[in-house]
Amino acid sequence: MKKHNFGAGPGILPEEALRKSAQAVLDLNGTGLSLLEISHRSKDFDAIMQKTKSLVKELLGVPDNYSILFLQGGASTQFAMVPYNLLPVDGKAAYVESGVWANKAIKEAKMVGTTEVLASSKDKNFSYIPKNFSIPKDAAYLHVTSNNTIYGTQMKSYPDSPIPVVCDMSSDIFSKPVDVSKFDLIYAGAQKNMGPAGVTMVIIKNDICGKVNRTIPTMLNYQTHIEADSLYNTPPVFPIYVCMATLEWLQSIGGVPAIAKLNQKKAAMLYTEIDSNPLFTGTTAVEDRSEMNVCFVMTKPELEEEFSKAVKDAGIIGIKGHRSVGGFRASLYNALPIESVAVMTKVMREFAMKTA
Amino acid sequence: MKKHNFGAGPGILPEEALRKSAQAVLDLNGTGLSLLEISHRSKDFDAIMQKTKSLVKELLGVPDNYSILFLQGGASTQFAMVPYNLLPVDGKAAYVESGVWANKAIKEAKMVGTTEVLASSKDKNFSYIPKNFSIPKDAAYLHVTSNNTIYGTQMKSYPDSPIPVVCDMSSDIFSKPVDVSKFDLIYAGAQKNMGPAGVTMVIIKNDICGKVNRTIPTMLNYQTHIEADSLYNTPPVFPIYVCMATLEWLQSIGGVPAIAKLNQKKAAMLYTEIDSNPLFTGTTAVEDRSEMNVCFVMTKPELEEEFSKAVKDAGIIGIKGHRSVGGFRASLYNALPIESVAVMTKVMREFAMKTA
Repeated sequence: MKKHNFGAGPGILPEEALRKSAQAVLDLNGTGLSLLEISHRSKDFDAIMQKTKSLVKELLGVPDNYSILFLQGGASTQFAMVPYNLLPVDGKAAYVESGVWANKAIKEAKMVGTTEVLASSKDKNFSYIPKNFSIPKDAAYLHVTSNNTIYGTQMKSYPDSPIPVVCDMSSDIFSKPVDVSKFDLIYAGAQKNMGPAGVTMVIIKNDICGKVNRTIPTMLNYQTHIEADSLYNTPPVFPIYVCMATLEWLQSIGGVPAIAKLNQKKAAMLYTEIDSNPLFTGTTAVEDRSEMNVCFVMTKPELEEEFSKAVKDAGIIGIKGHRSVGGFRASLYNALPIESVAVMTKVMREFAMKTA
Repeated sequence: MKKHNFGAGPGILPEEALRKSAQAVLDLNGTGLSLLEISHRSKDFDAIMQKTKSLVKELLGVPDNYSILFLQGGASTQFAMVPYNLLPVDGKAAYVESGVWANKAIKEAKMVGTTEVLASSKDKNFSYIPKNFSIPKDAAYLHVTSNNTIYGTQMKSYPDSPIPVVCDMSSDIFSKPVDVSKFDLIYAGAQKNMGPAGVTMVIIKNDICGKVNRTIPTMLNYQTHIEADSLYNTPPVFPIYVCMATLEWLQSIGGVPAIAKLNQKKAAMLYTEIDSNPLFTGTTAVEDRSEMNVCFVMTKPELEEEFSKAVKDAGIIGIKGHRSVGGFRASLYNALPIESVAVMTKVMREFAMKTA
């Protein structure tokens, strides 16, 4: 039976990208060599890297004065790199605490320098996006998280900021249009909408580095990777290839505007079911509902086990909620077909009728 | 035509491991899911991680009081992590400079604290391994590089050290037996003998962390990864899987002792040809010759282009020497069959006869 993969990440990827990537592991473009055993300084890999970068640039409309980097270490490493590179020794940074990942970014910044938390939704278990906070003009940057995977909240607009904005877009990048020029730095672990685990994309305005008076380990210094075009040391060759194949798929179906329409439709289908089905209820503020991660609980928690079985019988996987929220979480990443959402809502409807 | 891949890395991998990895990208163990789209917290991935660790433990005889970690960022990130974690604020570290990579490790340590270079072979373009240096008893650790890919030198024995030894084994790990208990920390980028680019293995004695009085970024702190069993954040799932498949292959052919014998034979074949063929000459001190990377130049440099063509016609790839040494470099990693070395020496012999 075909699986309907609602996993929160590493998440579902397009079949086309998987097939192409598997073939490249066996033989890259008829070279007689595996993608895994070619030099990262070879023409073949250079073509992959350049193609991946140009897809990102085109799909997101990245302005010319930004660099696109492919690094290792996940968003967790970015939590340290951001303050190391952008927080001056005698300056301060401003953060919005919208979930556990934002909280980890804050902890890391505090290790580096003065860090002010402007707003937090911790008071209600991060079930909403903090808004209407004032941004100190003397802070070096404002850090926000665009989508909070665990809680199912998402920023629908970005604050008008008098200072540079840094955004962790790990779980919604490429899911909808974004005006890159409004950010000085965007980072994203690939393993949701963009590719597999093992590569982190950074989109960085070229002139923002070198302004802090601090010794930065070479590998944590954005300047190292900007100057070396992500080839300071051996990059994660295969994960980058899968990103290329995934973005080629995205381009082939109409790019970010097309997927954004589909993602809206998928989310609307599921939220409509949650709102109309007496057995289920959403866990977040309605206006902050994420189109990527839909969190909900049952109005009769004693039915959770039975519902989980019905879901599993339908081939649905990966919808167990995070322990800090409980209930269920259905992740609707780019590669999840709308048919999978239809199966999900059907199971929910049928389950409600059966147990009514 | 079959390619004979003598590339310096990312290097040749066993066909069996490539086939198995390509299959896992399409469908992991008949689960109906790709390896790339499963959760890193799933049972399926846990089994992969545990199997990879147990293969490392078994193949290298890692004692129980060590942790085996799979990290991101390459050896270049280790260059920073080692001093961050092991060099006390008021202490000093001792390094041996045996090549460009050792030199990069030294530069990184100097950013962190007092760093003494005990010996260097820079005077002769790193064509030998520094020996007979004395090790200061008051240094926190001694850092050495077991094999120098660019220059083709390799340590044949490790110094008797009164202080903990840290070793960069990126380019010869798993190629010959090693007494892990003589080291406090071993690290290795996977992309030579162990797997693809994108994962770095660290073998670390459990009790050596937490002894320096320094704030360490979470992701650069070995303790983070020891405590989380390499799952503090999403690990590089696919690269780890390929390591597992590669080590399974190594185990199936008799493990490290068997491959060591084969590697000796391969290296002896090529060095014998270099020494007996009037057209070629080795570039390193004979006693320090690497079994992994064989560097040589032509006695008549004007024939280089023609020889390169003959080599290419035989399906041999990846033997261009590094720009800092020139000539040729043939890398004989574990997965390179002895038949490829036979093809190489045949081309060298025939070329010498033809041009005599």
